[in-house]
Order: sequence, then C-alpha cells, then structure tokens
Amino acid sequence: MQISELSDRSGLTVQTIKFYIREGLLPRGSAVSATRSEYDRRHLERLRLISALREVGDLPVAAIQQIITAIEDDTVSLHELFGTTQYAIGPHVAAPQDPNWRAAREDVDALVRELGWNVTERAPARDLLAHTFVALRRLGFPITLTDLRPYVRAAREVAEHEIGRVTDGASRARTVHSLLVSTVLYEQVLTALHRLAQEDASARRFGTG
Amino acid sequence: MQISELSDRSGLTVQTIKFYIREGLLPRGSAVSATRSEYDRRHLERLRLISALREVGDLPVAAIQQIITAIEDDTVSLHELFGTTQYAIGPHVAAPQDPNWRAAREDVDALVRELGWNVTERAPARDLLAHTFVALRRLGFPITLTDLRPYVRAAREVAEHEIGRVTDGASRARTVHSLLVSTVLYEQVLTALHRLAQEDASARRFGTG
Repeated sequence: MQISELSDRSGLTVQTIKFYIREGLLPRGSAVSATRSEYDRRHLERLRLISALREVGDLPVAAIQQIITAIEDDTVSLHELFGTTQYAIGPHVAAPQDPNWRAAREDVDALVRELGWNVTERAPARDLLAHTFVALRRLGFPITLTDLRPYVRAAREVAEHEIGRVTDGASRARTVHSLLVSTVLYEQVLTALHRLAQEDASARRFGTG
Repeated sequence: MQISELSDRSGLTVQTIKFYIREGLLPRGSAVSATRSEYDRRHLERLRLISALREVGDLPVAAIQQIITAIEDDTVSLHELFGTTQYAIGPHVAAPQDPNWRAAREDVDALVRELGWNVTERAPARDLLAHTFVALRRLGFPITLTDLRPYVRAAREVAEHEIGRVTDGASRARTVHSLLVSTVLYEQVLTALHRLAQEDASARRFGTG
C-alpha cells in the first residue's frame, strides 16, 4: 500500500508517519519509484503498536525506541521484552530516602520473597507498593500480610489469566501490544469493576432498602 | 487540648485548622476564656479525615463539606454516605456523546444488570468502565464477558473483604475514613501487586533462566 492508505488505515497523518520513519521507529517502505514507496501489513501493525504505546502507555519517543529495539532483537526473550515495556510505563514514584520509606520498601521486598515471586529488584511496582504502605501507615492503617492476602490472590489470578491469553506464535510486536493493553487498560477495567463491586457490597451490608 | 496541641497531633498548622473552622468543616472548640478554646478527640479525628480526603482523595473543600454534612446527618445511611464519598473521588471521565461511547456504556449497563449488582445509574465507575471499553475496541481488543470474568471475580472478592472489614459500632467519620482508604490506597496496592504478579507469571511462562 502507499503512504496515503497507511495513513487512512492507521488513523495517523502522513506527517506523523514520516516523523516515525525519521526517528527510526518505523522501517522505510520499499522504493518502487523515485517518489513512491510501498508499505505492508507489518508497517501497519508497527504503527498501531506505536500509537498504543504513546496514547495508552503515555510513553515518550525514546522509551518507544528502546521497546522497538528489543522487539527486533531476537536474542531478547519475551520475558525481558515484557519487562522493558512494563518498566517503561508509569507510574514511577520517587523513592525519598527517609527511614519510613526504607522500612516500607523492606516490607515489600520481604513480601515478594515470601510469595516466591520472580521479580527483579528494580521493578518500579516495588516502589509503588512501598509508597502506598507509607501512606497507609501515615493515615493510621498499618498493613499486615493478612490484610494483603485477598489483594495478592486477586492480583495473581488476574495476572495468570493475562499471561495465559498471549497466543503462541503471535508476532513479538503483537505480543508486546497485548501485554501493554493488559497492563494499562485492564488495570483500569479492574479499578472500575472494583468500585462497582464496592457499591454493591455496601448496598448489601449497609443499604436500607 | 488547646489548638497548639491539636496542631501538633494532627500535623496541620494552626492557620489551616482555623481555615477549616471558618469553612465549617470543623466545629469550634468550647470556649474556656475569651482567647482560649478546648478541643477533644473528635476534633482530631475530624482533622485526620479532612487531611485524608484532601491528600488521598484529592478532594476540593466543597466536596469535603458535602461529605461532612452527610456524616453529621444521621438520616443518611452508611451506604449513602459511602456513595457520596466514592462518587466525589475521581477519576471522573468525560462521556462524549458519540455512538461508540453510547454502545460501550450500554454494554456496561448490561453487564451490571447481568451481574445483579446494586449500583446507581449515575455511578462514575460506569463511565470509567465504558471509557476503557472504547479504548480497548479502538486498539482492536474487543471485550467479551468471558474476558471480563477473572476481573469481575477479583473485584468482587476484594470488595467483599473491604466492606467486611468495616467495624460495627465505629464512628461514621471513622467508617468513611476507612472506606476512602480502601477505595483509593488499596486500589493502588492492587495495581502494584498486579504488576508484580504479571512479572512473575511472565517469568514462569516466557523466562529463559
């Protein structure tokens, strides 16, 4: 297809597509004349991934470049590729080096060890969890492993489902795309359902009619 | 206690406490002389709730006023009080009146009916869920009830646990406080655990070592 059709089908302007080519995010098409190039399905798939990373993951071009380099390097395992994508997505919380924060981060690390989860030391979600522990303690709601158990179970079940639905033999770009969607959009699905379920549970316990 | 001690124990400045009194968020202390008032534990509890609503819920003074009015009005059931608090907390997504959005919102309403959940028509979480459905479809990930099942189950289990841990006989202010914390902070706990669990599930399925 020509660049105009690629633009129509991706919903991106020709100008944006040319910008992605210049930035090395999208390979050039194959030249069929001095002024025309041909593009194929892989260009379209790549553009859809770039759009998703920008819109859904809110990622800057440099982070997208890193992910695309990892997609194209077959020596990078799918697991590392997933890590690269997940770690690039926010929220990244600052880790203030005060004693409360350090204690919370140690609790998180102990929890991950106790659960036997295979998670790197630098996973941003460790800091995110430590951050909530600090806030909960400050508000007078100290955390215990018992309090966390239902959340751990829910998180594990949902994550198993998400990793399980990745299709064997899909392209690496498609796999990254679907893991990104699981991480960001299904996280919002879970948040919305959580609020609806809270209202229902409250109606059953506290409702008057 | 005097206002200086109230300030120490709440971590708020005397100026902020006086502002909350002027805005009607905090009752005046009982006057013990022309220039001194006495404050008690209820003032401290109220200040902690106000701080939590501002910091954790990111709520403006007007929304806090509405919640405090509901706390003080015993004819408002705990369920309605929880609704007032939950609906005041963001995220509130805009509902663009286009056909894709209307279709997604109808799907959400059908889902809530099918689950038999007791949730008002105006619950902001319905729009939040519709918003994610639109984004998922646009990215080529249409939603089915089967895809949603693990999320529904996880949301329900966590919500049951949260509503269940509200202590009978706690003050209404304390109950609102704890439901706020469940909604906002434990939602972040769930998000962080979800990401850690994803990494672990990915290591088991795709890891190389």
